[in-house]
Amino acid sequence: MALKLTAAEIGPFLDEVFPQVKGMFGIDRLDEDLLVMRLFVSDAHLRPGGTVSGPSMFALADVAAYVATMARIGRQALAVTTNCSIDFMRKPASGKDLLAQCRVLKLGRALSVCDVLLFSEGGDAPVARASLTYSLPPRN
Amino acid sequence: MALKLTAAEIGPFLDEVFPQVKGMFGIDRLDEDLLVMRLFVSDAHLRPGGTVSGPSMFALADVAAYVATMARIGRQALAVTTNCSIDFMRKPASGKDLLAQCRVLKLGRALSVCDVLLFSEGGDAPVARASLTYSLPPRN
Amino acid sequence: MALKLTAAEIGPFLDEVFPQVKGMFGIDRLDEDLLVMRLFVSDAHLRPGGTVSGPSMFALADVAAYVATMARIGRQALAVTTNCSIDFMRKPASGKDLLAQCRVLKLGRALSVCDVLLFSEGGDAPVARASLTYSLPPRN
Amino acid sequence: MALKLTAAEIGPFLDEVFPQVKGMFGIDRLDEDLLVMRLFVSDAHLRPGGTVSGPSMFALADVAAYVATMARIGRQALAVTTNCSIDFMRKPASGKDLLAQCRVLKLGRALSVCDVLLFSEGGDAPVARASLTYSLPPRN
Repeated sequence: MALKLTAAEIGPFLDEVFPQVKGMFGIDRLDEDLLVMRLFVSDAHLRPGGTVSGPSMFALADVAAYVATMARIGRQALAVTTNCSIDFMRKPASGKDLLAQCRVLKLGRALSVCDVLLFSEGGDAPVARASLTYSLPPRN
Repeated sequence: MALKLTAAEIGPFLDEVFPQVKGMFGIDRLDEDLLVMRLFVSDAHLRPGGTVSGPSMFALADVAAYVATMARIGRQALAVTTNCSIDFMRKPASGKDLLAQCRVLKLGRALSVCDVLLFSEGGDAPVARASLTYSLPPRN
Repeated sequence: MALKLTAAEIGPFLDEVFPQVKGMFGIDRLDEDLLVMRLFVSDAHLRPGGTVSGPSMFALADVAAYVATMARIGRQALAVTTNCSIDFMRKPASGKDLLAQCRVLKLGRALSVCDVLLFSEGGDAPVARASLTYSLPPRN
Repeated sequence: MALKLTAAEIGPFLDEVFPQVKGMFGIDRLDEDLLVMRLFVSDAHLRPGGTVSGPSMFALADVAAYVATMARIGRQALAVTTNCSIDFMRKPASGKDLLAQCRVLKLGRALSVCDVLLFSEGGDAPVARASLTYSLPPRN
């Protein structure tokens, strides 16, 4: 699927539609095969022991699926998450950013389905896996 | 299932193990049938249009399942979420707290399974539904 | 939500669109609050030890969500399951039918979301819990 | 993760513990990276239009996760599925076997987590995606 938006175009769009999370996420890679999205881990994302909280992992998976979908359909702020299933498998490493590898499994007329693997930066084994469905607004 | 902890006992325990979210959640009701947990909605939880963000809804469902489980097994900070499946069904009302109704469907030796319905305060229709599994530490 | 089809009308409709499962399921109750659907357990559904197989439990949850949705929107054979999350919590009792209690949490323009609890007949504790999303064809 | 069982060893083990599904599944590939499991599609798995039924897709994903786990921990008939989340994305092709690509994302002491993609034989786009968690019996 050809992309309609580049990483450089999506960054400002994200800041505009989600001003509350400005500066929290970055895009390491975005092409037709893969999106790699980064959570800049700060104290607000941590749990005792230095591990990243579940809601922060969910937030990263969710924004990654949103970005991967937007990159394909163009700026459609009204897309909304309808379902997420997430498995937490390992404790994230302390003091490391979290990286999401996101693939679009289906881009239909009404729904987008994405698969996300989360890793601590530099780690080999995924800390979590998520699938997310977005409901898409009618397109012309 | 008889409860081992009351709402008054769980509040300080939550503050101790999750200091980052101190003051964010309250317990409206806790008995053997039902836990009602409240997210005190503030600007940090909002998205444009005044709606509560997905990660905030996830966080409420997650902490509700944790509290419902702790109330039954006692203080076990090491319980961890292993899976969450969440359906986002309606836009939360603007300017309202979010309430989670949480029921424990199974409390086994190794796993706890909880069902959660989320409502905007005063609303009749659920805004989200989640099921969560916690992995429990070995107990004596 | 008022119902457009009764149990007596849905039975023949199911036989027509899913002839492969004719005689496998029954409707114990269908009203605006609750659908109770029955799997007539036979040898084909069993696993060693007499327990009902996972795929049979999935099939019961899936058909219950389909019936609950059809009862509200009318005969729309083209509705398709897009997501199911199911938790298997207890071993079903040997030699008992399985009953699904199904509630419609959301009936939107494009999606229907149902919650299902499965019980062995006569049992108090749920053997499984499922949520299912159906994608609905455009309606007039 | 080194494998403890080969495809040739698992086949008879499956027939022994799940005699009801004897002859329904085959193993196309089994190594440390990937399991490819085949559903020999027959009339019993079909829906009108020749498409494979949801419960049949669930059954294939479930047995693939079981086989991938058994291959790593050895013959442990007592492992049970505790959770499955499955997204149905496309209609399977008529008259084609279904193939599951299964990867083990985590093999812990108590839980195994597998990711499964389902394809119609010869097709490029996945028809479904599932994640499954198995609860494992205590090992020595």
